[in-house]
Amino acid sequence: MSVTGPRGFTSAGVAAGIKAGDALDVALVVGGEGTQGTAVFTVNTAAAAPVELSRRHLAATATVRAVVLNSGGANAATGQAGDETAAMMAQATANRVGCDPSQVLVCSTGTIGSPLPRIEVLAGIEAAADRLAGGEAAGLMAAQAIMTTDGVPKQASYESSAGWSVGAMAKGAGMIRPDMATMLAVITTDAVAGQPELESVLRNAVDHSFHELNIDGCCSTNDTVVLLASGAAGMTPDIEELRDAVATVCRDLAEQMAADAEGASRVVVIHVTGAANDLAARHLGRAVADSALVRSAFYGGDPNWGRIIGALGNVAAPAEVDGADIDFAGVAVARSGVAVECDEDALAARLATGDFTVAISLGDGPGAAHVMTTDLTPEYVRFNGERS
Amino acid sequence: MSVTGPRGFTSAGVAAGIKAGDALDVALVVGGEGTQGTAVFTVNTAAAAPVELSRRHLAATATVRAVVLNSGGANAATGQAGDETAAMMAQATANRVGCDPSQVLVCSTGTIGSPLPRIEVLAGIEAAADRLAGGEAAGLMAAQAIMTTDGVPKQASYESSAGWSVGAMAKGAGMIRPDMATMLAVITTDAVAGQPELESVLRNAVDHSFHELNIDGCCSTNDTVVLLASGAAGMTPDIEELRDAVATVCRDLAEQMAADAEGASRVVVIHVTGAANDLAARHLGRAVADSALVRSAFYGGDPNWGRIIGALGNVAAPAEVDGADIDFAGVAVARSGVAVECDEDALAARLATGDFTVAISLGDGPGAAHVMTTDLTPEYVRFNGERS
Repeated sequence: MSVTGPRGFTSAGVAAGIKAGDALDVALVVGGEGTQGTAVFTVNTAAAAPVELSRRHLAATATVRAVVLNSGGANAATGQAGDETAAMMAQATANRVGCDPSQVLVCSTGTIGSPLPRIEVLAGIEAAADRLAGGEAAGLMAAQAIMTTDGVPKQASYESSAGWSVGAMAKGAGMIRPDMATMLAVITTDAVAGQPELESVLRNAVDHSFHELNIDGCCSTNDTVVLLASGAAGMTPDIEELRDAVATVCRDLAEQMAADAEGASRVVVIHVTGAANDLAARHLGRAVADSALVRSAFYGGDPNWGRIIGALGNVAAPAEVDGADIDFAGVAVARSGVAVECDEDALAARLATGDFTVAISLGDGPGAAHVMTTDLTPEYVRFNGERS
Repeated sequence: MSVTGPRGFTSAGVAAGIKAGDALDVALVVGGEGTQGTAVFTVNTAAAAPVELSRRHLAATATVRAVVLNSGGANAATGQAGDETAAMMAQATANRVGCDPSQVLVCSTGTIGSPLPRIEVLAGIEAAADRLAGGEAAGLMAAQAIMTTDGVPKQASYESSAGWSVGAMAKGAGMIRPDMATMLAVITTDAVAGQPELESVLRNAVDHSFHELNIDGCCSTNDTVVLLASGAAGMTPDIEELRDAVATVCRDLAEQMAADAEGASRVVVIHVTGAANDLAARHLGRAVADSALVRSAFYGGDPNWGRIIGALGNVAAPAEVDGADIDFAGVAVARSGVAVECDEDALAARLATGDFTVAISLGDGPGAAHVMTTDLTPEYVRFNGERS
């Protein structure tokens, strides 16, 4: 089920000619009157023009009638012309939806620094508005239109037995790190919810999904996650169920992104426990996931816990690294910071089979965190070394 | 000229059997009575046993009669047994030199987490002590004995017309980042200098050489830079000349390390100007040098300044990225954060030829910094993905 699964939403994806060939590159997601919305944006200070515009729109109104998205260009580092293009995208969408431009959010993704071809984008918005429809096919086309280096479109959904549902689409396949790099997501629900509830629900969901992803430590200029509630189901949901539903959908999308990460051959979950608090645990997990040496060892299926100790030592307290217990795929390789006997060949054979978990216990504290990453591969470098 | 160039020093390098085959793996550098010393160590909190020991020794005495070094094992994350091995290395060296163990510094490099073979190391120290000698050959053998993944031994020197000199050796070929990762260096001089002057001279030198290197963002457990002054030239140097000499020698070694970085195909110098102060400039330069995406583009010879904007946006103020001017190899690619016309094919052809500089100007501030890095290559990942 897609963003059009929940009642009250239509969508479209069209080929506007921003990307080469016939690739879909402009999408619309439109909600009915009274649709409430919120969003979480990148913390990168070089935020793209569409991010700055969307922030201003959300500050002005809680009503979000439409999201217009394009791939093929990030409209970042594009100066005043880029600001004007983003504003024109909102205006063109508002004209067709019949709303105020401030009720439109704009999302762009692609190469940083190249101006968007304005005429093509605006013509694409017109074409998309002509094709707005409900149903699976329209949702899938929107999901396809936001893909950049993604290998597959990404959708997720949740259906409540109470009669409301959540649908979602996302793009992101690399350049992913906490605080969301080069990812876009639109999540829709037909439950009745106002902006304050939606904000709380979305912050929690992002914190337990996209913020746990750390593919290459790069944080982008364009990341945006939008949550829209049409209220078309006519019922106020149990807020805990809505919170869990949106978090589950976001986690599903994050896992799809990790599995689709550029050039990655495996997903590795780093599970930190025993830290002073959850925030400290995440900081430690990210330090491990940020290490090119550690991630190269993941690629080789090498249970090289010494490199993990080295990475932890950049951020952990001395007592924490001295007491570190480390397991690869459930096999103890270090206790209290020192090697323990294990069948290394059997373990390497296990690691060679694919995804695995690295468990790191650092002390007696209550803090815990999951950080999802991938291995660093020669393919990643080759892929990102090509001139764009 | 090597560490034995300056008068008052002898050295040796032997094959003790820590590394496979006949590779040299234990080195000694010995100074005469009254030799003064200081060192700069890693800031990694998982510091290796030899680092902890050497720190204690330097806190106890300003006299450093010998440095004992081994490759083939970092003696890090080795628990109490590792502490004992480091202490025994100092004691064995002291026995032969005829000094107190606190007058010996210990340096180890190699894989983290594996215990050092104690008997081999101690026998190696005896063998090295038997072969202590002055002259080029002895200095070169010591430089070879500390190599790990280095492709070449690294030495540097300076001769003052005033009659004193500086000699140096180092190892380090990857895992290099600011605050010195997996690098060892020993610098000797026959000038007369006490520990306080040496400390100031060494801090300045390290800050303007090794701390400007950033190969893969990994900071190691063992990094140590030692500066010894034998006073055998019998003269007190002009302190400014000594400062410049040690800085020049360290910069020479840092450049050798960058050129020898694991799997790197080119050295890229990131030159940041216009920041609020030098520290801020370095922070910005490191953010660029830490980006796997930027370094992958360096590999491809792609003047992808948009990725640099994205990397800067993680740490810079909005006004700084909005005003960024970026040049690749002297060619302007962005002005005030926006693309400018340039002959991209000619520029790519220039970048394909090898090393280049990226100049980033962010504002009107007086802060400037050089950060030296390399490209990220498929070879780096393959190399570091092998089981160690």
